[in-house]
Amino acid sequence: MESLMIYLPIALALLGLIYMFIKKAWVMKQDAGDGKMKEISDHIYEGALAFLNAEYRLLAIFVVIVSILLFAVSLLVDTTHWLIVIAFICGAIFSAFAGNMGMKIATKTNVRTTQAARTSLPNALKVSFGGGTVMGLGVAGLAVLGLTGFFIFFYQYFMGGAEGVFSVEKMTIVLETLAGFSLGAESIALFARVGGGIYTKAADVGADLVGKVEAGIPEDDPRNPATIADNVGDNVGDVAGMGADLFGSYVATVLAAMVLGNYVIKDMGGSIDDAFGGIGPILLPMSIAGVGIIISLIGTMLVKIKSNDAKESQVMSALNVGNWVSIGLVAISCFGLVTWMLPETMQMNFFGEGLQEISSMRVFYATLVGLVVGAGISSVTEYYTGLGKSPILKIVQQSSTGAGTNIIAGLATGMISTFPSVLLFAGAIWSSYALAGFYGVALAASAMMATTAMQLAIDAFGPIADNAGGIAEMSEQEPIVRERTDILDAVGNTTAATGKGFAIASAALTSLALFAAYVTFTGIDGINIFKAPVLAMLFVGGMVPVVFSALAMNAVGKAAMEMVEEVRRQFREIPGIMEGTGKPEYDKCVAISTKASLKEMMLPGLLTIGFPLVIAFVPMLFGMDNLAIAEMLGGYMAGVTVSGVLWAIFQNNAGGAWDNAKKSFEAGVEINGEMTYKGSEAHKAAVTGDTVGDPFKDTSGPSMNILIKLTCLIGLVIAPILGGHADETVLTNTVNTEEIIKTETVEINEDGTVGKAMATLTKVSTKNNITTTEEKTLEGTLEEVHAKVKALNNNQSVDDVKIKKTITEEVE
Amino acid sequence: MESLMIYLPIALALLGLIYMFIKKAWVMKQDAGDGKMKEISDHIYEGALAFLNAEYRLLAIFVVIVSILLFAVSLLVDTTHWLIVIAFICGAIFSAFAGNMGMKIATKTNVRTTQAARTSLPNALKVSFGGGTVMGLGVAGLAVLGLTGFFIFFYQYFMGGAEGVFSVEKMTIVLETLAGFSLGAESIALFARVGGGIYTKAADVGADLVGKVEAGIPEDDPRNPATIADNVGDNVGDVAGMGADLFGSYVATVLAAMVLGNYVIKDMGGSIDDAFGGIGPILLPMSIAGVGIIISLIGTMLVKIKSNDAKESQVMSALNVGNWVSIGLVAISCFGLVTWMLPETMQMNFFGEGLQEISSMRVFYATLVGLVVGAGISSVTEYYTGLGKSPILKIVQQSSTGAGTNIIAGLATGMISTFPSVLLFAGAIWSSYALAGFYGVALAASAMMATTAMQLAIDAFGPIADNAGGIAEMSEQEPIVRERTDILDAVGNTTAATGKGFAIASAALTSLALFAAYVTFTGIDGINIFKAPVLAMLFVGGMVPVVFSALAMNAVGKAAMEMVEEVRRQFREIPGIMEGTGKPEYDKCVAISTKASLKEMMLPGLLTIGFPLVIAFVPMLFGMDNLAIAEMLGGYMAGVTVSGVLWAIFQNNAGGAWDNAKKSFEAGVEINGEMTYKGSEAHKAAVTGDTVGDPFKDTSGPSMNILIKLTCLIGLVIAPILGGHADETVLTNTVNTEEIIKTETVEINEDGTVGKAMATLTKVSTKNNITTTEEKTLEGTLEEVHAKVKALNNNQSVDDVKIKKTITEEVE
Repeated sequence: MESLMIYLPIALALLGLIYMFIKKAWVMKQDAGDGKMKEISDHIYEGALAFLNAEYRLLAIFVVIVSILLFAVSLLVDTTHWLIVIAFICGAIFSAFAGNMGMKIATKTNVRTTQAARTSLPNALKVSFGGGTVMGLGVAGLAVLGLTGFFIFFYQYFMGGAEGVFSVEKMTIVLETLAGFSLGAESIALFARVGGGIYTKAADVGADLVGKVEAGIPEDDPRNPATIADNVGDNVGDVAGMGADLFGSYVATVLAAMVLGNYVIKDMGGSIDDAFGGIGPILLPMSIAGVGIIISLIGTMLVKIKSNDAKESQVMSALNVGNWVSIGLVAISCFGLVTWMLPETMQMNFFGEGLQEISSMRVFYATLVGLVVGAGISSVTEYYTGLGKSPILKIVQQSSTGAGTNIIAGLATGMISTFPSVLLFAGAIWSSYALAGFYGVALAASAMMATTAMQLAIDAFGPIADNAGGIAEMSEQEPIVRERTDILDAVGNTTAATGKGFAIASAALTSLALFAAYVTFTGIDGINIFKAPVLAMLFVGGMVPVVFSALAMNAVGKAAMEMVEEVRRQFREIPGIMEGTGKPEYDKCVAISTKASLKEMMLPGLLTIGFPLVIAFVPMLFGMDNLAIAEMLGGYMAGVTVSGVLWAIFQNNAGGAWDNAKKSFEAGVEINGEMTYKGSEAHKAAVTGDTVGDPFKDTSGPSMNILIKLTCLIGLVIAPILGGHADETVLTNTVNTEEIIKTETVEINEDGTVGKAMATLTKVSTKNNITTTEEKTLEGTLEEVHAKVKALNNNQSVDDVKIKKTITEEVE
Repeated sequence: MESLMIYLPIALALLGLIYMFIKKAWVMKQDAGDGKMKEISDHIYEGALAFLNAEYRLLAIFVVIVSILLFAVSLLVDTTHWLIVIAFICGAIFSAFAGNMGMKIATKTNVRTTQAARTSLPNALKVSFGGGTVMGLGVAGLAVLGLTGFFIFFYQYFMGGAEGVFSVEKMTIVLETLAGFSLGAESIALFARVGGGIYTKAADVGADLVGKVEAGIPEDDPRNPATIADNVGDNVGDVAGMGADLFGSYVATVLAAMVLGNYVIKDMGGSIDDAFGGIGPILLPMSIAGVGIIISLIGTMLVKIKSNDAKESQVMSALNVGNWVSIGLVAISCFGLVTWMLPETMQMNFFGEGLQEISSMRVFYATLVGLVVGAGISSVTEYYTGLGKSPILKIVQQSSTGAGTNIIAGLATGMISTFPSVLLFAGAIWSSYALAGFYGVALAASAMMATTAMQLAIDAFGPIADNAGGIAEMSEQEPIVRERTDILDAVGNTTAATGKGFAIASAALTSLALFAAYVTFTGIDGINIFKAPVLAMLFVGGMVPVVFSALAMNAVGKAAMEMVEEVRRQFREIPGIMEGTGKPEYDKCVAISTKASLKEMMLPGLLTIGFPLVIAFVPMLFGMDNLAIAEMLGGYMAGVTVSGVLWAIFQNNAGGAWDNAKKSFEAGVEINGEMTYKGSEAHKAAVTGDTVGDPFKDTSGPSMNILIKLTCLIGLVIAPILGGHADETVLTNTVNTEEIIKTETVEINEDGTVGKAMATLTKVSTKNNITTTEEKTLEGTLEEVHAKVKALNNNQSVDDVKIKKTITEEVE
């Protein structure tokens, strides 16, 4: 039965997808409400489709160009197979499909949620969370299906599957080719996240500036040509962007863990004998991902409330029940899977410390580290951005003295929040590595990501509820409907912030695992920042996330201005538009916003993809040593990761804090003993803060995840070119080594004369996993020592020789 | 004559100080104006003294505590001598004295500048720049005097001076003890910069909020008890803070270059034979610093204008003439000193690449790299923060749509400015290292810092002119007086921004040199971020500058609130204060501001000093290997440096850009075709941006320099404890080594069977600087290869053996 384990993840993914289709059918069967509601919802759906069409046209060009480049590389480099091109294209298509599917279901669920809210709050939650569940299971299911499917195919193609002879080197080719799938997924995620982020904020600002300020019509008025773009933007940014992002993370995490699993086998002598065709450590991350889908499915079933009078806290605890039960189940199943699938003890090579025996229990503890840190980061995020928490109250207080102090307080909050977050990361890196090496780091990330489907369901239900509220307002429903959707929306704001914490935590650990895989792929012995070129690249890498963020922020401003001009043109040229008789050209606004956002994201995209390529290939033209280049690129990757994580936390949390500081005024806040509400000067200051926070938390901040993952993935794909040693290692195995080191030292006396001398002869030999170290020390004057060494070399006996011998046997 | 070279820097420093006293006497002889002007000036002077008294009381406690700790360390660790305590205390006193002196001359020069401006603009420039010159020469002179004096003392004490026997190990002790001087200087700089930064902004905000807003009295009104604190703050922050900062940089740069010079001697076999007692590479940085003082002195003499109708550009070009001539003279003198003092060719150990021959010309090119990068960074800073330049114009445009867009534009400008700056740094690190190793990096920094006196004169004249303008306003002079000081003030704003660029550039290179010295002191082989604990510390280090900045920003807010309450109390309790009959208690405000700022800077200070200590000593308690700890601490230092440089550039340039965007409205700006002035909505938005920028550019941004330098210095002082190998290396010298490495590899066929085998025997022996490498390669089946190896070992002849032999002789 165990030999069929390779098909388990794919089966579980299919199971998840089947449940998703059932759930989707259920959602679609729900009442979509009256004519007006339907009309608005259809406009949003059409706009979303318009965006998708424009986006896919552009992305197709990108995919074709990169495919040609990859194909050229596969022709030039022996160790890169052309199948990587197919994997890349499919990764891109899967990722686009996942985002597309999520956006479609979200735009269909919003109006049904409004309708459900007319009956009761529990029903509204059921429908909106149902939509989120469809998206979550869809994204996770597609990720596992695609990755596992390609793995099985490449495993058969390159190695003849379980029947073939396992070799670490061939498995490396399998996984390198599989990296193409991840690269494709992450590239599309970059476009979806950054483009979507620019889109949503540009449409938002554009619609407000012309509609509300210039034309004097209310927000979300159907006469405003940009209003649909605005609502589409919410789905594009928060739903599709997040979906593509987590799709990419999921795939990259599992891939990195598989690569490191392969190296565990290498460290154990190149092959292991287990019930899983000798690839247990490689199958384990896929199995965790597969089981995670089913666990998430169970978790989503637990999310329900009974009372129609429930408040935010009860909705929140309903979500928490589902979330915590999933996390608990993942912990239990990790225990089962790890102890079942891994050898009881393994050898792992710890950099600079040699081989160590690691029990499978320690790998299990590493997965627990991942779960604890994921939960920890979410809690930290909730503290720094949560309504009613001390940081938010301080920002509210500082709003009373104007926008300047509000901004300073918000910036400071985002900056301070890096303290506990980074300490958590550092602790996670350290402890999971100490427990089970980089394989432990990768499995910590895998365990954290196992509940992706659940996380995504929780994340996606927020924007659905938000849209539902908008539709309720536009179609003039009873106030109770809006009140109910508002409760869901408020909970959604909190989950959106913690979701971002989860996304950056998983991205950081994934990047580290990819980084470790990169070092091993290239065959360099570590990344030494005491080498000046490596240090220089650490600086350059640190700079990239900062410049990337600035470009994204500027892009929002530019795209918004283009939108403003288009809306002004329509108001001027379309007859009867203000009277409601002329139909606004929604799709033109959507096209403008799409075009502008995709155009504006080119430069940050170029920066992300171009820098690693320049660092890798320009020094090559100057004849620099490949391994030196590989180390420089490693320094660059480390710089991007460290700086990217810091700027992600800073921007996400500052943005979230400003948003909730502004929201605090809706219920009223006490400033210097006085209750202060919306419309006050302090509230205006808080609105300014929120304007600054918008691109922080919705455009540049969340893009950091993808920037760091994509950078590390590009490094991984370039790795075989830089390594250049794969050719030899594919065919050779070092069996015996012997090293004899002879050192003679003399003491220099205070007066500069030569004093006592000492010679050390060290012999280190390794044969069949047994290492013998023999150290002989001789003392005397320099001449005496010379004579003694000579005698020893001639196998004569020597007085006063100190001999220290150690034998280490590595047991399999 | 050459053996007296050791006294040259001290002689040049004394020459500089003598000229400073002459210049000071000249400034003090200038007319200090009428009674009212004098009264205001005296208030500022008294306030400054009050601050100094309070500050020194607090710092004395700090110095005592650290001295006790250092003394305890010197008792416990063999390689740390108790004289480090004396060096530390003197470094602290010198630094405090330098800041004190600068602040005193600035507060005396301001009123004399006002008086001079009543006669003509050339006179006003002459007086204000004269004050700046006194400060510049004083700081640089004290730095060289102190450092060189202690070096000569320790050189005599530990090694018997030029008559004694030189050994690299003893010189290491000399330089480690000397590091105490630098540590003392940098610690005081931390307090002066951060405390001063908090002070100046707290007093500014406090005075404005109560005086202007609540009491309705004009800015700088003598009835406002906080107005003196406000004016004192300018001197405390911009003059004393900058002085202590550059004093620390100057000392640290020269020290780091000396340490690396010592390692050049080590790489050359442990001793060289030159005309400078065998310590030419160590004396060179001190000599460059000494000559730099005289060059700066010449440069300051060239700064003059003739026309009374001169505009900003003419004043700017007068400063530029002085600056460029100094830089040119430094380049010429570097050529002379380098070729004179260094051996024509040297051996330097390049990490991972072994010994290389480096000509002294390459060291000279490295100094040119330093000069070019210093100028480059200043130009970049000027571009991003200069009036009338495109980034500022964009921020002005964005102000028209409100404070939110102004803030976004300012943040983005600061972030984008890291792009060219970091590329310049990375280029400087790479090229100066490629030219002459880390000694080249350190000498690049030394050359850049050689004109410190000139830079400081240019920097300090700005706040003097600013204060002079304030005195002119308060004492109701003719408008022409204010116009003249305004011209000087405007130029001062530009030089302040470029001065910050210069400060961060020099700090970054200095930190790298200290970092290199640290690695060599501890004896670790590089800092490998592929080790998880090192990577974790890279993350933690990256976080510290972010949290430090946030704490500094929050501190400004808190200290300002305390000031507000004190001013309110005085208005309430002192009879006749508003009528001008009751004298406000200026010193109480100053005390409040001082106490609050020094209290608030404790936490950032603790963070800076505490983190490296925790990283070094906590793992030690758990029995972790010292070298592993040293590598972790190195990762931390790298993280602080990379992140600190980024955040310094970001914050300084964003702050400078906001400031000048606001200033642009004074002369009027064109927004969407309309001229817009002070008082417009756009101007109000720009004022909000400036409020955010104030703590950025005057508190947290400039503190980054000291944070990174102090972190690296603490590492350097801890280094001997962690290294722990100094004991052995002090007395032994490796003379002969021989290494024989035998490797056997076998090919694995596609079907898993064993194929062809190969054995390599490599023998590397070094004897009297001649390295012989002999490589023998044998091929065949595994059995054949075994037999051949055995035969070779028994000195029998073997067929088909490929032999490759290389002999390298290192010529001294």
